[in-house]
Amino acid sequence: MTIPPAPPRGFDTAEFARRIDRAQRLMRAHNFDGLVLTTPHNIRWATGFDSQFWESPTRPWFITLPADGAPIAVVPEIGAPQFTETWLDDIRTWPSPRPEDDGASLLADVLNTLPRSSGRIGFELGREMALRMPVTQFLDLRDRLPGVELADGAEVIWAIRMVKTEAEITHIRHICQIASAAYARVPDLVRPGMTEREAARALRIELAQQGADSTPFLPAISGPGGVPQIVCGPGDRVLRDGDVLFFDTGSTFDGYWCDFDRNYAVGALPDAARRTQDAMWRATDAGIAAARPGATAEDLFHAMAAIIQEVGPTDNNVGRLGHGLGMQLTEPPSHMFGDRTVIEEGMVLTIEPGVEYTPGKMIVHEENIVIRADGAELLTTRAPREMLIIQ
Amino acid sequence: MTIPPAPPRGFDTAEFARRIDRAQRLMRAHNFDGLVLTTPHNIRWATGFDSQFWESPTRPWFITLPADGAPIAVVPEIGAPQFTETWLDDIRTWPSPRPEDDGASLLADVLNTLPRSSGRIGFELGREMALRMPVTQFLDLRDRLPGVELADGAEVIWAIRMVKTEAEITHIRHICQIASAAYARVPDLVRPGMTEREAARALRIELAQQGADSTPFLPAISGPGGVPQIVCGPGDRVLRDGDVLFFDTGSTFDGYWCDFDRNYAVGALPDAARRTQDAMWRATDAGIAAARPGATAEDLFHAMAAIIQEVGPTDNNVGRLGHGLGMQLTEPPSHMFGDRTVIEEGMVLTIEPGVEYTPGKMIVHEENIVIRADGAELLTTRAPREMLIIQ
Repeated sequence: MTIPPAPPRGFDTAEFARRIDRAQRLMRAHNFDGLVLTTPHNIRWATGFDSQFWESPTRPWFITLPADGAPIAVVPEIGAPQFTETWLDDIRTWPSPRPEDDGASLLADVLNTLPRSSGRIGFELGREMALRMPVTQFLDLRDRLPGVELADGAEVIWAIRMVKTEAEITHIRHICQIASAAYARVPDLVRPGMTEREAARALRIELAQQGADSTPFLPAISGPGGVPQIVCGPGDRVLRDGDVLFFDTGSTFDGYWCDFDRNYAVGALPDAARRTQDAMWRATDAGIAAARPGATAEDLFHAMAAIIQEVGPTDNNVGRLGHGLGMQLTEPPSHMFGDRTVIEEGMVLTIEPGVEYTPGKMIVHEENIVIRADGAELLTTRAPREMLIIQ
Repeated sequence: MTIPPAPPRGFDTAEFARRIDRAQRLMRAHNFDGLVLTTPHNIRWATGFDSQFWESPTRPWFITLPADGAPIAVVPEIGAPQFTETWLDDIRTWPSPRPEDDGASLLADVLNTLPRSSGRIGFELGREMALRMPVTQFLDLRDRLPGVELADGAEVIWAIRMVKTEAEITHIRHICQIASAAYARVPDLVRPGMTEREAARALRIELAQQGADSTPFLPAISGPGGVPQIVCGPGDRVLRDGDVLFFDTGSTFDGYWCDFDRNYAVGALPDAARRTQDAMWRATDAGIAAARPGATAEDLFHAMAAIIQEVGPTDNNVGRLGHGLGMQLTEPPSHMFGDRTVIEEGMVLTIEPGVEYTPGKMIVHEENIVIRADGAELLTTRAPREMLIIQ
């Protein structure tokens, strides 16, 4: 399986200008004077700034995006050399760590100079977001900004990020192709008698060799005819005849993720597992077919559930049948009952039907797609209808 | 270089009982009726629960640790199968995603039944912590708990986590030994003419082959005679004669991290770089010698700074000369002016002297140690006094 050449890393200034222009239109529509970004993904989306140093919780970082005009970086000194290489011109720093005031007073100064219209500044306070600064410092900041409402900016931020640019889609396709190629090699890498952990290590190395930058998410779970859960592991269980081996990966290329799984049959599968496998494969097809502009996330759920019910209950502990994807392993929307998010051109989604067809035995499929004007385009290489065999 | 056999994965129930007993003594001393944990590291510390699924921001997870009695898990259904395998008995779940109430009402029920003494419940609100739940839901929760003070629990949580058990130290030593062995092989893996990115990929694969579970942090930065910064990269710069190649890694084994760097000379180094290298090596020795029970983090800073000043300024953009280490890449304390944290037996620390000896050229060393009654024990294999050569 040949992976197309890697796209150029990073994005040009015109791309960022388009992103910010679209963001500012949405901000004005949602009545925000500015947005403050603190999380790695949101900051990278707006600035291109890339670092693995987010693993250190010591220092907060801030990007202020005014409703008009250029973004302003308020970052610890350790980040200054690399921030000057981004497209941003206005970069302010403080000596950090400084636990008594790690950037809050400097950020307050910036926010106090923003032109006020609504008086509302959006922060990452709501849905599927966790503010990356101490809550105590956020509450202090609020006290430093009388007359300003620090409001929940999560809905507008997700509205901005859910629709991807063509350059972002190219990045996601590339990591999807890398992982597709690595998954195709699993029958060469894994043997019965290996542990889940040994199998996962072999796939982790293969992903790096195929060109993945990192692999933050790689569960490897096995069980006779299906798996009990899909989010923990690998463990030390030994692969045996009749097992399903479930691999899932969120690997990255230049800050963009894939998130899709593959199931392998260790030797011969029980009939019930084979029937379930076929139903999940068809449910995936149904989900892909339903994913068109104008449909809702809930419509995708129903399209998949109509087939899942052939073999088992349509509710399982995952709680949804796929979700958004991009700079994080999962993003809104959720393909579930009650999520009426309208699917738009440019959204990247996972299609993830799964079923616990008998207690303790789940089979879950997953592919990644991008929404085009006339329907879904597959970013992954579609899984074969029958599981590949490990022998 | 031979790595000792891996220690057993996970920890027995007696270990968790000891951790909780110590935590509860500190909680009572700090006047908390309970602590609520939401972040991966704190939850794993208390329960042993391991998942890579924290990469998905969709669902919050909660552990309530009462001042007396057993911890209570309040987790989304997707996590229930694996939570029943931890040492916890009291596991409550809700069907998630449920954006309108993702666990908050269930958590409020649990907190309302805790015995009240001080009326204070600690949350991860302060120093070097970011609450892993939407702030809007945290503020809602506060409204659901009249008469309860949701206070900053960060200081008590860090007091608990800063001192490691012997089993934790064994885990950290193992990943330090894995990374030491991988670093020793760099002269076999890297050649002049490779890019930083190619060099990093070679080391990433070597770390996995030596037994690292994951490598979330692996900057690879190069520059003539030194590097301009130490937290971003790798990039596409090509390694040339006279360069310093700086590698740093936070890799993990069973949830525990190493965090130490190594510098390599590409061909022959300029004299000023060689002098700086020697000073940083001696500064590291001085930091290790100063790291004894009863000293403060600030004392460690001064011990290293006394030697750094031979070759350049003692303030650089990193802002400190080392820090705590354990379940995260960096933890308190910070070896810097003003951090009076008293060093105790069982603390695991990095010793990280660095200097920008001329503008744009930094050399930074780093080792990992554990504090014993009579001084520091090295967990890493000490770097050679002269840089290994890439040729």
